[in-house]
Amino acid sequence: MTIWIINGPNLNLTGKREPSIYGNESFETYIPALQSRYPHTKIAYMQSNHEGQLIDWLQEADEIADGVVLNAGGYTHTSIAIADAIAAINIPVVEVHISNIYQRESFRHHSYLSSVCKHTIIGHGLAGYEEAIQWLNNKQTMA
Amino acid sequence: MTIWIINGPNLNLTGKREPSIYGNESFETYIPALQSRYPHTKIAYMQSNHEGQLIDWLQEADEIADGVVLNAGGYTHTSIAIADAIAAINIPVVEVHISNIYQRESFRHHSYLSSVCKHTIIGHGLAGYEEAIQWLNNKQTMA
Amino acid sequence: MTIWIINGPNLNLTGKREPSIYGNESFETYIPALQSRYPHTKIAYMQSNHEGQLIDWLQEADEIADGVVLNAGGYTHTSIAIADAIAAINIPVVEVHISNIYQRESFRHHSYLSSVCKHTIIGHGLAGYEEAIQWLNNKQTMA
Amino acid sequence: MTIWIINGPNLNLTGKREPSIYGNESFETYIPALQSRYPHTKIAYMQSNHEGQLIDWLQEADEIADGVVLNAGGYTHTSIAIADAIAAINIPVVEVHISNIYQRESFRHHSYLSSVCKHTIIGHGLAGYEEAIQWLNNKQTMA
Amino acid sequence: MTIWIINGPNLNLTGKREPSIYGNESFETYIPALQSRYPHTKIAYMQSNHEGQLIDWLQEADEIADGVVLNAGGYTHTSIAIADAIAAINIPVVEVHISNIYQRESFRHHSYLSSVCKHTIIGHGLAGYEEAIQWLNNKQTMA
Amino acid sequence: MTIWIINGPNLNLTGKREPSIYGNESFETYIPALQSRYPHTKIAYMQSNHEGQLIDWLQEADEIADGVVLNAGGYTHTSIAIADAIAAINIPVVEVHISNIYQRESFRHHSYLSSVCKHTIIGHGLAGYEEAIQWLNNKQTMA
Amino acid sequence: MTIWIINGPNLNLTGKREPSIYGNESFETYIPALQSRYPHTKIAYMQSNHEGQLIDWLQEADEIADGVVLNAGGYTHTSIAIADAIAAINIPVVEVHISNIYQRESFRHHSYLSSVCKHTIIGHGLAGYEEAIQWLNNKQTMA
Amino acid sequence: MTIWIINGPNLNLTGKREPSIYGNESFETYIPALQSRYPHTKIAYMQSNHEGQLIDWLQEADEIADGVVLNAGGYTHTSIAIADAIAAINIPVVEVHISNIYQRESFRHHSYLSSVCKHTIIGHGLAGYEEAIQWLNNKQTMA
Amino acid sequence: MTIWIINGPNLNLTGKREPSIYGNESFETYIPALQSRYPHTKIAYMQSNHEGQLIDWLQEADEIADGVVLNAGGYTHTSIAIADAIAAINIPVVEVHISNIYQRESFRHHSYLSSVCKHTIIGHGLAGYEEAIQWLNNKQTMA
Amino acid sequence: MTIWIINGPNLNLTGKREPSIYGNESFETYIPALQSRYPHTKIAYMQSNHEGQLIDWLQEADEIADGVVLNAGGYTHTSIAIADAIAAINIPVVEVHISNIYQRESFRHHSYLSSVCKHTIIGHGLAGYEEAIQWLNNKQTMA
Amino acid sequence: MTIWIINGPNLNLTGKREPSIYGNESFETYIPALQSRYPHTKIAYMQSNHEGQLIDWLQEADEIADGVVLNAGGYTHTSIAIADAIAAINIPVVEVHISNIYQRESFRHHSYLSSVCKHTIIGHGLAGYEEAIQWLNNKQTMA
Amino acid sequence: MTIWIINGPNLNLTGKREPSIYGNESFETYIPALQSRYPHTKIAYMQSNHEGQLIDWLQEADEIADGVVLNAGGYTHTSIAIADAIAAINIPVVEVHISNIYQRESFRHHSYLSSVCKHTIIGHGLAGYEEAIQWLNNKQTMA
Repeated sequence: MTIWIINGPNLNLTGKREPSIYGNESFETYIPALQSRYPHTKIAYMQSNHEGQLIDWLQEADEIADGVVLNAGGYTHTSIAIADAIAAINIPVVEVHISNIYQRESFRHHSYLSSVCKHTIIGHGLAGYEEAIQWLNNKQTMA
Repeated sequence: MTIWIINGPNLNLTGKREPSIYGNESFETYIPALQSRYPHTKIAYMQSNHEGQLIDWLQEADEIADGVVLNAGGYTHTSIAIADAIAAINIPVVEVHISNIYQRESFRHHSYLSSVCKHTIIGHGLAGYEEAIQWLNNKQTMA
Repeated sequence: MTIWIINGPNLNLTGKREPSIYGNESFETYIPALQSRYPHTKIAYMQSNHEGQLIDWLQEADEIADGVVLNAGGYTHTSIAIADAIAAINIPVVEVHISNIYQRESFRHHSYLSSVCKHTIIGHGLAGYEEAIQWLNNKQTMA
Repeated sequence: MTIWIINGPNLNLTGKREPSIYGNESFETYIPALQSRYPHTKIAYMQSNHEGQLIDWLQEADEIADGVVLNAGGYTHTSIAIADAIAAINIPVVEVHISNIYQRESFRHHSYLSSVCKHTIIGHGLAGYEEAIQWLNNKQTMA
Repeated sequence: MTIWIINGPNLNLTGKREPSIYGNESFETYIPALQSRYPHTKIAYMQSNHEGQLIDWLQEADEIADGVVLNAGGYTHTSIAIADAIAAINIPVVEVHISNIYQRESFRHHSYLSSVCKHTIIGHGLAGYEEAIQWLNNKQTMA
Repeated sequence: MTIWIINGPNLNLTGKREPSIYGNESFETYIPALQSRYPHTKIAYMQSNHEGQLIDWLQEADEIADGVVLNAGGYTHTSIAIADAIAAINIPVVEVHISNIYQRESFRHHSYLSSVCKHTIIGHGLAGYEEAIQWLNNKQTMA
Repeated sequence: MTIWIINGPNLNLTGKREPSIYGNESFETYIPALQSRYPHTKIAYMQSNHEGQLIDWLQEADEIADGVVLNAGGYTHTSIAIADAIAAINIPVVEVHISNIYQRESFRHHSYLSSVCKHTIIGHGLAGYEEAIQWLNNKQTMA
Repeated sequence: MTIWIINGPNLNLTGKREPSIYGNESFETYIPALQSRYPHTKIAYMQSNHEGQLIDWLQEADEIADGVVLNAGGYTHTSIAIADAIAAINIPVVEVHISNIYQRESFRHHSYLSSVCKHTIIGHGLAGYEEAIQWLNNKQTMA
Repeated sequence: MTIWIINGPNLNLTGKREPSIYGNESFETYIPALQSRYPHTKIAYMQSNHEGQLIDWLQEADEIADGVVLNAGGYTHTSIAIADAIAAINIPVVEVHISNIYQRESFRHHSYLSSVCKHTIIGHGLAGYEEAIQWLNNKQTMA
Repeated sequence: MTIWIINGPNLNLTGKREPSIYGNESFETYIPALQSRYPHTKIAYMQSNHEGQLIDWLQEADEIADGVVLNAGGYTHTSIAIADAIAAINIPVVEVHISNIYQRESFRHHSYLSSVCKHTIIGHGLAGYEEAIQWLNNKQTMA
Repeated sequence: MTIWIINGPNLNLTGKREPSIYGNESFETYIPALQSRYPHTKIAYMQSNHEGQLIDWLQEADEIADGVVLNAGGYTHTSIAIADAIAAINIPVVEVHISNIYQRESFRHHSYLSSVCKHTIIGHGLAGYEEAIQWLNNKQTMA
Repeated sequence: MTIWIINGPNLNLTGKREPSIYGNESFETYIPALQSRYPHTKIAYMQSNHEGQLIDWLQEADEIADGVVLNAGGYTHTSIAIADAIAAINIPVVEVHISNIYQRESFRHHSYLSSVCKHTIIGHGLAGYEEAIQWLNNKQTMA
């Protein structure tokens, strides 16, 4: 199984930025550890601050991958275009947020993506990404 | 591990009611099957149409269980009192919805419960309950 | 034909409470008189202040009765759960309000129930219950 | 003089739940102490998580008691039915809130009950119940 | 008894227009059939696409008829002037809608007319007109 | 000087309709009395329930009259088309309302016409029409 | 091909009224010129200030014409009844506005008609009518 | 004449993505066919999922092309920056949408672009692009 | 001291675009003049129409520069992602707008950036950039 | 007859301030001229920038004057306290605005004062004050 | 104990103004009677129509008094500045309203002061001031 | 150069009041220190809790001073009258806020003053006043 983990704006700073919200671990160390725990899943990791790049990758993933784990960061709340991309592709997309967006500013309470994603995991820290991997694996196993 | 599955109003009709939304399987057959797949987890199932009963059970669960899987049905969108109960107790509560509430009427898009629950699973049908069981088990294992 | 008249919160006080709004007659005298005028209809009367009890009765009525006359009182304007119950059952439900809710406070102008009830009768005093009985009788006759 | 203290959802947890908001003292110790300070007032204490039960008690109090001290908890902000019950009965009802609801989430800033209660006491901790007892006693003395 | 049935804009197309919403029967066949079933009621039928014409007829009806059955079509949701006319006249007006306006676009959920009409019948198809005739007959009988 | 008094929907009922709001005098007696008090002003009076007719008259008045006194009744609050007509013509239009619309329902608080009329007189009863005549006379005298 | 050009309120004043918004040319000169440029299209021109008349014409056009060019003027923003008429008929309707309504007052930004018209042309001055004629001709040619 | 057709996010998937909304034809086959029908117009086609790239192209087009046909996809409803680019350049921009955005989710009903584009074509499928080409050609011919 | 001036969408057109709003001077001439006036400050200038590029630069600046002068153009009002980037980095960011955004369209009145920037300068034309440089210099001097 | 003209904040600058809105004449010259035209009316003029002073004067006027002409300036739109003062006193108050507040910023469209004043004159420049004097004189004459 | 009673705009008229709302007793007679009932409390009474004066007194009271009873009248609903003053001082402030503001116009339902006052007494007539005195005395006794 | 520093309500308490928001330094010590740093600028300092006094001073400053530094405190968010005064005078006004109002309660996010002030400085503590002095000095130097 091939899974793309696509991170959106500012998530490359995770571990350095506002640790009270996002924790201390970075994706540089988290992703290899995650890969090692799921040897039968091929995990590709990519991050961009560009809304358009996230859309490009979602479209490409549809050709190559079996599922996507997407944390669109701040675009979650403003991007109809990313939601359209998710609706347009066929592989399942799992929406992940590190922090509990319902306990932060009210403009973070609405997600354009939730209604088109297959699953949403909110507020479990980096562990949410592993849950998403598990969920996609389980889903494929059951299918 | 002891988990209480608490279902809210009208969920006793699942399998009979509006199958295009809620599917064909009832909890009468689903829960025993679920229990048999998780022999080391003690699953208690209860359903009520009464908002107050759901609160009573949440408080009782705090004394007895290690986690709660809660589908509060229509009370999800109107009950500050249930949200207060979840905030008041110490065991983790996982919010489950059978259908994708974000694709239904707009009054179902807001949940008072999401900001106080530890995890939320939306739109996976009855399988969402099993995911919730798994999630609670994993969480305990990790703790 | 069997019809359940289900009254919601505070309607047990009708005749005593705020007579300028609700009139002077109580259901204790009204229901027997109503039954006597419709000898071929079996009328069951029940009242509860509990939202959950109203839902329980709606579900039970679906097994036993041919129709329901429902005045959900203050829950009319706040209860998605009762609306879900009405949508989930198969027998017709007629919504009744004693006073003209459109001429009272604005929070009484919206009913969650109207879109799922088969008929709505507003502001005809207790006579609205008789109209509802007639309407259900006519409907069955025509069916 | 007979006064009923009616507490709504989750208030049975007071003293244990979120002490930074609700303080450390429970009603189990507070009510007897209160009774002892007001030997000439007969205080009855009851608590329920059920909206309907609160309405039942308000109606019963109207037959037996001279006044009610009501903390409807989370139902304060959502229950038209409780407000209708208060409007329907003749004895005075004093609304009490332990915490200052105007300094918490915005959905706690509006009370359906304030316009029908005779008095409202907000944010004085458990002492607010004693103030309510005093206020009802004074009111009767003056009447 | 004399009853005027006043239909508003586009209702002359009933039977031809959007049959999935409005059904297949036209008023050309429905009204004579209705008249034949109520030989002791003198039914006058009129239709106009003109808001002002509807107001003219409501005022004239007040001189001649004993009641009005009014389906104001799209003007229901926008016309304060028609509502004023209904409030200004003395005979009872019954508001009828063929389809369930609460299940259509949100701009059809509010009626300026409901608060000034004596009765409202929604979503019963053409049969709603007959119900309105019956209701007016019953009302007169009781008066 | 020639002035057209144009009355909108239901104002032909003035004197009969809701006298607590609109008073007891009708335009049938008021207008001749008004004319006799202003012998040098040629007053034409017209009333229609038709929004389009009011627009027709406003356009015609622009060819013939020196000013218009307009009470558009319920159309005041909903008609962009009448406002456009007033903006399109060159003679001054005075907006009159018999009752104080700011003390009635909130949907009567906004007027599409006030920003395009030269003067507005609200809540002076029928005397407001005479004030409007005076104002137009004064204005011409000053010009 | 037969096309009806239906103009709504105040458009008969075009060329005279507010030329900075609507330009200097009137329909009296524009329509014959337009007809001469499209000799194979039979153009009928009509204008009314009456909302009901516009609906009458739309219904009649459905019997006679192959398409309608409609500028409903101020009714564009307020008339559900005209929108219903367009939805009820079978021939295509092209919505035209002379000025760019999105650059004027905010109450002109919403059109009830756009979702039921086949095409919308905004802000091209009188030339928009010619574009509409062309569009309807092209559409028929392609069909 | 040189015209740039600029397509925004996810429009590269047209023909594959949600055919019930967007149809079955792709731009890979549509654009050459379109070019062959307009041999005297030089058509350049470009697509990007990047909001910034669309702005870059709009600015470049101002140097090279005589007009732009723009379908900004999901950015239509969220991008003030693209609207600013259109306002900043001198060549005419025609806004095109394949589907009727007024008949889809409400967040697609508002366009930041319409007030700054010279023309808008909505809901004509791919044919809307050809209409846009024609409109730009006609406009230049007339200029 | 090293300061990055980061300009957002369409600001490369300054001097050419809408001079009544943005003035006549371009950044091509302004920036060198500015640099010459502040010889001890190392000024780097960059502009992009890409939201993601602005975020990239903000993150890079955090490694290299001592402060940022940011004019995010149209993204100011829509970009949570840029606001997140500013909040995530440690160097001070000064928000600049050439025109007075409070005197333009209402959608320009809200800035997502103001609450996370250290200073905001609005409506001083290009001179606002110099003020920002001065403010950053003063701040460093004081620190 | 004694009339107090009470002007609110910044109206002392009339004639100097923003003449395109407020005209060129000052109250220093206008009031004496006005007094000379109404020799039988005793006109007192006062101006203050203090909301409280306006209330003081309204209360004092009730003891001394027969009517008040009030231009509360910017307080018109924000002051419940002034509205309460007008409601509390017995003499008639005429609200005057020099400019047409309905054609300015939207926050000037609502007046707290209109519903409690006896008459309102908007947009007639300084002449509005004379109209107010006339209206009060006429009213007294008729009484 | 020293307590300042500070009354806001128009409360000097109490007893004369709108007695159906505010009663017949004036503060001229009420305050001395109140003082005589609380001989050990030094009561100072002051009233002003000036918002700024109320703030001055609140600040001065902080130096001299042990508590404040404040009825800010119409400023209650509009004054952030008074709320800031209450928050800035250290002595307790009790908010009093004579009438039940929740049963009056909706603009009187929100108080800027309630969240910063220590206690609020609404709708008890002048007796509310005595309750406030008692509450402050009790509070000091307990402290 | 003469500059008036005008402080609004409660700012006289700065240094004592809520130091976590406003800091520890008072204006009694800050202003002399500020004056000593700008010996060639004549600084006048004044503070009032009265909205009207602030307007008086703004008008007087226009006669005497070259610029104003204004912190209107709580009036910032409610006073149209102060905004009108700023618009009416000719000297530049710089708006200052000690705390970052965008990070406090939402009712502090909107300023009526920003659109009429020449510059706004927010959240720099007392140093914001010095920045304002510098800005006014620079502006005069450049003029």
